[in-house]
Amino acid sequence: MALKLYGLPMSTCATRVMICLAEKEVDFELIPVNLFTNDHKQPPFLAKNPFGQIPVLEDGDLTLFESRAITWYIAEKYKESGSDLIRHADMKEAALVKVWTEVESQQFNVPISTITYQYLIAPTLGKPTDQALVDENVAKLEKVLDVYQERLTHTDYLAGDFFSLADLHHMSFIHYFLKTPKASLITDRPRVKAWWDRISARPAFTKFSVNMRYDF
Amino acid sequence: MALKLYGLPMSTCATRVMICLAEKEVDFELIPVNLFTNDHKQPPFLAKNPFGQIPVLEDGDLTLFESRAITWYIAEKYKESGSDLIRHADMKEAALVKVWTEVESQQFNVPISTITYQYLIAPTLGKPTDQALVDENVAKLEKVLDVYQERLTHTDYLAGDFFSLADLHHMSFIHYFLKTPKASLITDRPRVKAWWDRISARPAFTKFSVNMRYDF
Repeated sequence: MALKLYGLPMSTCATRVMICLAEKEVDFELIPVNLFTNDHKQPPFLAKNPFGQIPVLEDGDLTLFESRAITWYIAEKYKESGSDLIRHADMKEAALVKVWTEVESQQFNVPISTITYQYLIAPTLGKPTDQALVDENVAKLEKVLDVYQERLTHTDYLAGDFFSLADLHHMSFIHYFLKTPKASLITDRPRVKAWWDRISARPAFTKFSVNMRYDF
Repeated sequence: MALKLYGLPMSTCATRVMICLAEKEVDFELIPVNLFTNDHKQPPFLAKNPFGQIPVLEDGDLTLFESRAITWYIAEKYKESGSDLIRHADMKEAALVKVWTEVESQQFNVPISTITYQYLIAPTLGKPTDQALVDENVAKLEKVLDVYQERLTHTDYLAGDFFSLADLHHMSFIHYFLKTPKASLITDRPRVKAWWDRISARPAFTKFSVNMRYDF
């Protein structure tokens, strides 16, 4: 029975899971959730994810939510297939994958998602961009990217000289962020830019990035 | 060679790791980091964690940071010792542990840490409590705890009928939060309160909670 993924191609978090499934060469059925009619806040969807957010993955009778939990599950269940995203055969490398996935989650995600929302989503909802909030988060993101620039001077990818979940988790937000007026935070840091060029050229990403549009 | 943990007993994130080490019955050496003299922002510490935050774990030549990455590493490396915190023998249970650790990280952590900071830390730094920020985060935390109340009506712990990292990751912040004027968000929800009573009675927690004081 194929995995069922509830989500939308434009969603950063749903795409995070789709890129992971493609890296693992695992087939899945994408079940669209209509966010515009608030289907994700209705009882049938809330029974799958009580927080009312996409994506949700169903694997038989197992229902999972939170994109970063879903990618770990996929990377472990299909560890012998496709790219090794968790370095399952080397405990030290696996630990570094965990460190840098947590860096994405705790340090990178809030500033990049806040800036991206303010530039790309707020205007479509008729709200002005909150410039003070943008500035505060640009300062935070710059500090994080300075650490990445230094890290990526020593290794080709965040967790080491291998592509992993740590890199993958960043991809969908950087894709959108590069469409904001703050794109130079990425492109002016040579090692960060080279890393982005390297990971965004992966077929598992280009397959989905073409459908990642915010002008809905 | 014993594990070395750089941190402080009052730190929520360092305590997260200490509780995990105690659950796994693993010895470690605690190396204090003087936050008041900014030791965590100086080159020797930044070489261990470029984000300048505690805790850091050293296991021989492996250096790890981000508390939630460190707990996963410990729970996996010592999976046969002490409490099974990751349900390593059951892929479905392990997946649910991942889901609910991500819930803590993505849904619970920001509102509870923001409220706790505003009430307990800001005043010690001579800053007034930002009531609008508190109110906004109380509203968010109430929604999260409503989900927990429902979830804990069906299971004794967040990921199922077993204590796991998903519960453990919550403990140090709830400990401090209960000292704020918003404690009733936890204590007025019967199943959440019963869950807290259950997990906070664990010896691995009481061993450290006595030293978790904010009136430094």
